[in-house]
Parts: sequence; structure tokens; C-alpha cells
Amino acid sequence: MTSESGTAVVGTGAPRLRDNELRARAARVIPGGMYGHLNVGALPPEYPQFFRSGQGARVIDVDGREYVDLMCSWGPVILGHRHGAVEAAARAQTNSGDCLNGPSERMVELAERLVEVVSHAQWAMFQKNGTDATTLCVTVARAETGRPRVLVASGAYHGAAPWCTPVLAGTTPQDRANIGYYTYNDLESVRAAMTDEVAAIVVSPFKHDAGFDQELVDVAFAKGLRALCDETGAALILDDVRGGLRLNFGGSWEPIGVEPDLSAWSKAIANGYALAAVLGRDRFRAAATSLFTTGSFWFSSVAMAASLATLSALESEDAVATMRSRGEAFRAGLASQAQRWGFTILQSGPPQMPYVTFAGDVNHKVATAFATAALRHGLYLHPRHNWFVSAAMTDGDLDLALTASDGAFRELRAAASNGR
Amino acid sequence: MTSESGTAVVGTGAPRLRDNELRARAARVIPGGMYGHLNVGALPPEYPQFFRSGQGARVIDVDGREYVDLMCSWGPVILGHRHGAVEAAARAQTNSGDCLNGPSERMVELAERLVEVVSHAQWAMFQKNGTDATTLCVTVARAETGRPRVLVASGAYHGAAPWCTPVLAGTTPQDRANIGYYTYNDLESVRAAMTDEVAAIVVSPFKHDAGFDQELVDVAFAKGLRALCDETGAALILDDVRGGLRLNFGGSWEPIGVEPDLSAWSKAIANGYALAAVLGRDRFRAAATSLFTTGSFWFSSVAMAASLATLSALESEDAVATMRSRGEAFRAGLASQAQRWGFTILQSGPPQMPYVTFAGDVNHKVATAFATAALRHGLYLHPRHNWFVSAAMTDGDLDLALTASDGAFRELRAAASNGR
Repeated sequence: MTSESGTAVVGTGAPRLRDNELRARAARVIPGGMYGHLNVGALPPEYPQFFRSGQGARVIDVDGREYVDLMCSWGPVILGHRHGAVEAAARAQTNSGDCLNGPSERMVELAERLVEVVSHAQWAMFQKNGTDATTLCVTVARAETGRPRVLVASGAYHGAAPWCTPVLAGTTPQDRANIGYYTYNDLESVRAAMTDEVAAIVVSPFKHDAGFDQELVDVAFAKGLRALCDETGAALILDDVRGGLRLNFGGSWEPIGVEPDLSAWSKAIANGYALAAVLGRDRFRAAATSLFTTGSFWFSSVAMAASLATLSALESEDAVATMRSRGEAFRAGLASQAQRWGFTILQSGPPQMPYVTFAGDVNHKVATAFATAALRHGLYLHPRHNWFVSAAMTDGDLDLALTASDGAFRELRAAASNGR
Repeated sequence: MTSESGTAVVGTGAPRLRDNELRARAARVIPGGMYGHLNVGALPPEYPQFFRSGQGARVIDVDGREYVDLMCSWGPVILGHRHGAVEAAARAQTNSGDCLNGPSERMVELAERLVEVVSHAQWAMFQKNGTDATTLCVTVARAETGRPRVLVASGAYHGAAPWCTPVLAGTTPQDRANIGYYTYNDLESVRAAMTDEVAAIVVSPFKHDAGFDQELVDVAFAKGLRALCDETGAALILDDVRGGLRLNFGGSWEPIGVEPDLSAWSKAIANGYALAAVLGRDRFRAAATSLFTTGSFWFSSVAMAASLATLSALESEDAVATMRSRGEAFRAGLASQAQRWGFTILQSGPPQMPYVTFAGDVNHKVATAFATAALRHGLYLHPRHNWFVSAAMTDGDLDLALTASDGAFRELRAAASNGR
């Protein structure tokens, strides 16, 4: 791919003048120069902070460097950047109306479609952030059960509100007073944390805590959670914000036959347009009706039109299968490259959301060197967070990604041989 | 204006087949049929639930009825629907990139622009919801001061998170454990609520609680809040989500010479594109850097490009003056119509965000009849919430609005004469 300006180059080479200039300007008017999950402050300086554009499985930074994109905007981009049908649907809706005095019919169509696609869902509500969705799930569960306590897995990420943000600065002890913790895939730890005050158990479809090897869900654990909720009346809340629609066209636990009561969605639901959703069972409908939740842009139609087109394309393109096979091919390539260059790596998680750690790698030092070298060779990865495969990845993208990873392993080997 | 399909009609007349069909479908898949501030469940059945499009100061519902729009999507639309320069900027950015692996340079430009436009601002952070912005202000104040308590005016709306939503269903007592209350414009009540645990005082630029006459801020009250914060080290947080950019091109309290430490923005900041912002003083920069807050779409560029274009147009069109003069003309017209038809009304709030109550009107019964009659005559108002004027209002729109309000007063008078 060539960028629209015709100046894109693959990987490193171009001077990083624009990124550096923008970083200096940002440092003056944005706290810390950047914040949140897109802050590259803790990554090596080779990582670009600012981006210009994306197309398919490629992204281009502000200095015109092009990369095969294996972060996909940290999940939202699932069909690839600027997917034709999604962009056309968004454009058509923009030309009609987006933010009006009421929703458009897109909202009803999307609620109907999600109820059709996700087996446990009997109703839908829409928001803007994944955090909105997880917080609303918890609120609905409390309203239905009249109980305050919520169990989450230690170390799991469920958003950045005071009740769940991974950094405590600016929060109060009361924000966590009703949160209990269990260990993922350890049913005994959930049982030990249960009290008759528990309104809900929140769980991710698999363990994808940043910085750790990923862990697929133990089916007995998932079934045990369902049984525990059935026994106690607590709500089982599946946080499908990160995994939703990448693992399965439908809820992520449908293939293992475990249905949650409530599920939280965002990220990939509209291929990059700002949208989140809560899906729920009828038992929780009255509670969802009783509370007050809203936002100025929660009813806007363009993101909903984009979501409808995203769901259609995911289904018609059999996108989950594509992402899985691309992920498997990339994983197989990495495994053989690691062996060839003499590195012991552990690949974890589903192939659509792969992650790699190096044996004995203290503080992600080797992983960081690997990802940074890959970046120089034209592949965008993150050293401490799971990656995301999109359905737009072509054979050419895969080849380029594996060429880049091979180059990265080679550099690592050379550095190791030089005693660096 | 004629709708793109050519089927728009002003006011009532067309059958409401589409709205009714969509309501029936929504009732099956959306809790309560709709939720949040755009739920028309508590309004008369004449109010459309679903909309099709908007252009300038007009909106069209799903059945093709056209209205002069005095709700402006409850605030976001400030330059009018589908403003040329804003749409062009959004389209250009869409064609480059929106949600990528990092922000685009639009984010830096917008932070710089807001720091330039809003006098107290030395830095900016962006979010998606007004609630994100007010919550982040509170979190930053707590992080800086190390204190937990936050004072808000009784009855004020600062968002729909558990700490501030006006309905308690699904919240816990702990969510409000650190919230104290004062009375708007009553400095003594603030002093009485102060403790050495107070991190922040949150205040709206004027009292715009739904369902009540609005109240402009008493300058001595605003200055007293500033002095109290200076004495105690608490942060003064201005919630400019609803009034921001309509009252003043800059912070809403700049004309009275009172600067907050932190301010929350959303709604009109990008003329309908989903965006929110927190602006702050240097004293709070380190605290803002220390906490973790983020969202999947907080760095997306299209809404930021729209915001840059919105700020330019607001400035170059002198939009605040236009909104004020349109609001004053509408208010003057209403006053003379009310007198002519023999109604005693109270008009309150700034002219850009007008609101009307009727003397002795129990439970908003007369206001509801008035707004519903205005709706039938082609003017969209809300009976229990302040209205919003946009800068797109033409002489023709104003004439049509006043013709509709005159027709509404006439109907009210006829009904009163008939003893209804």
C-alpha cells in the first residue's frame, strides 16, 4: 500500500521529525504529553506516538512510516481500517442524521440484530465507552438483586472508572468497598469470595491481563460460575469488550455453551466507530428500565449504522475464521522462527488475539527489544499487551509481518551474540 | 426546507406510522422501549421518538414531519445540523484516519486551541461523554488534594455515573459517601458543607436543573466559591458541559471574571460529534498525569477535527452573539404573545438557553400542553427542560417558531375558554 500522499515507506528510515515536534507540543498542553492506553511514554522512543492514517491491515504514522498493524487500534478495527461497506454505511448515515433529538431507526435495527446474533441477549442498550458498558452491567445487576457486592478477577481490566481503574490515584476506598476479588479459572476462589451480598460476578471470556501470558477459560470454571449464579441469584456478567466478535460471531462463550445474564461490548462492535453496548436477559429488563443512564451521544446514528454494516460483513466474510487462520499462520511462523534463531517463546491466547513472551524474560526486556525491532522492520506490535488480528490481513500482509518478525529475531540473536 | 426525500411536511398532518412501528419494535429489544434523556415515554404521544435527519435549525422525524429545532439534540448542535465547515472537516479526517494506534496531530491542535480559547486552561484531556469529563475532574481534584469529599449543588445534574445519576436504582450508599450538597447561589450553604476533607466544589455556570425555573449565577456567589477554594486548597470545578460555548466563546464564567481550576466540556464542543474534554490549570497537571483514565475511542480524530472546525466557525461567525440575539427575539415574541393571549409566563436563564414556565402551573400541565401544541405547529420544544438555540436560526426559522408558539398560545386559550 502507498499512502494517499504517496510518501509512505515501510518500517523505519524516514526521519521522525513530525512525531518529535508533536510530542514536544503535546508535552505543553496534554498532561504527561499523552495519557491512557495510547500513551507510548513507557515504550522505547522508536514507537511513534502519532498516526496519520490506516487502510486494511496497514497503518501509517505521522512521519509516513507504514506498518502491518497487529494492534488494530487496540481492538476496535476488526475488518481492517476503512472497510468499504462500513465506511459507506457511515457516510450514508452522516448524510442523513447522526445526533438528533431522538435516535434514528438504526438504533432499533441494531438492537434487533444483536438480539439475533448473541444467543443470551433479549435486549440491548448502547453507550460510548467499554467502561460505560461494564459499569452499566454492574448497575443493572445491583438494581435487579438489591445487593451491592461485585466479584471481579484479580488483575483483570474492566475499564477505567473509579471502581475498576488499575491505578488508584484519585479514587477513594469507598469506590472499591463493594468489590471482591477471585482468581481467574479458580472456582474455589470464587466460592470463597461469595457472600449473600453478591449482585454479580464479572468475568472476561479468557484471561487477557496486560503483561502476563494469556489463559483460555477452563470450561468447568465457566460452567461453575453459571451454576453458582443460578444458585445464588447473582448475575453472570461477561465482559466481552476486548474479545467480543473476534472469538466468535456471537457471544464469546457460546462455543462452550455458557450464557451470561448480561454482557458488555465495545471496541470491535462498529469497526472503530465509537460505540458500546450492554446485552441482557429478560430477567434484568425491568431493572435496566428502572435506572437512569445516558450520554449526549449515546443515541447517535452513524456509529450504529457502522455497527450494522460491521456485523453484516463479519458474518458474510466469515471474518472470525479468517482472523483465526491468519492468527494461526502468524503463530506457526513465529514458532518456527523462534526455534531457528534459538529463542524459547510461549505463545498464548486465541490466535485472533495472540501474545508472545520469552522464557526467562525479566521485565519484558526481550519482548520489548523484539517488538521494537519488528517495528523497525514494518510490523506494529506491543511488547506487553495482547495483539489483535484483523480480517483484512492479506497474504502479502502476513508475509511482510513474518519477514519483519524474522528480522526482529535475527537482530535479537545478533545482539545476544554480541553480549548486548 | 424540504427534506432530501422531498416528503417533509411542517408540523403535524402526516400519519405517524413509522414512529409507532419503531416504538413497537423498540419495546421488544430495548428496556422500557427507550432510556435516558431521549426517552419520550413521559411526554405526550404526539412527541416523535425517532428522527430521520436535520439541516440547519430544522429537524425531521421518521414520519417526515419537519420542526424548527429548539432542543438542538439537547445541546450538542450549536452551529446547526450538518454545518458545512464542520462536516467538511469531519469528512476530510474520516478519509485519512479516525481510530488508530495513536492519536493524530488533531489532538495536539485541539488541545492547543482550547488552551488558547479558554482562559483558565493550561492543559486538556479528551473523552467521549460529559459524565467522563465531570468524573475525571473530580478524580483529578482528589488525586491532587489527597482528599475524598466533593460538594455539588442539590438537584444539579452532573452526569449519569453512580456518584451523580439523579436516580438511585443500582447505586450503593458508598457511591455517594463522599458527596456533600449545597444550595446554588447560597454561599453560606457552601460554607456550612465545607470540611477539611473537601477536594472540590462542582458548580454549573448557572442553575439549569430540569423542571425548575433557571437561575443565573450571582457574581458574589461565584467569587465567594473562588475565594473559598483559594483558602482551603479545594479545586473549583466548573461543569460547562451544558452551557459551554453557548454562553461565551471561552469559559462560561470568563465574563464575570471567575476562573475555575478544572472545567468539564462536552455537548456543543464538536457540533454533535462525540467528544468531551477536561481543561485544567497547571497546579493539577501532575495529578492528571498520575491517574489512569482512558477509553477505546478517546483518541479518535474525526470528532477532534469537527471540534477544531466548530471552534473556528463559532469564532468567525460570532455565533454566541447570534444565538443570544435570536434567543432574545424569540423571548420577546413569546412575552408579547403570552400577554396578548392572557397568560402569565416566567422566562428564565440566558437567552441562548431559554426556558418558560406558566404561573401556577402544577406538574408542568400547562407547559406540556403548550409545548405539545407548538410541536403540532412545527416547533420542537421540551416542556420540562431548558431549550437550546443554535447559530443556524434564520429569520425564517424565527418567524416559523413564533408562528408556532402563537398557535400554541391560541390553542391553550381556546381550551381554557372551553373549560378544558
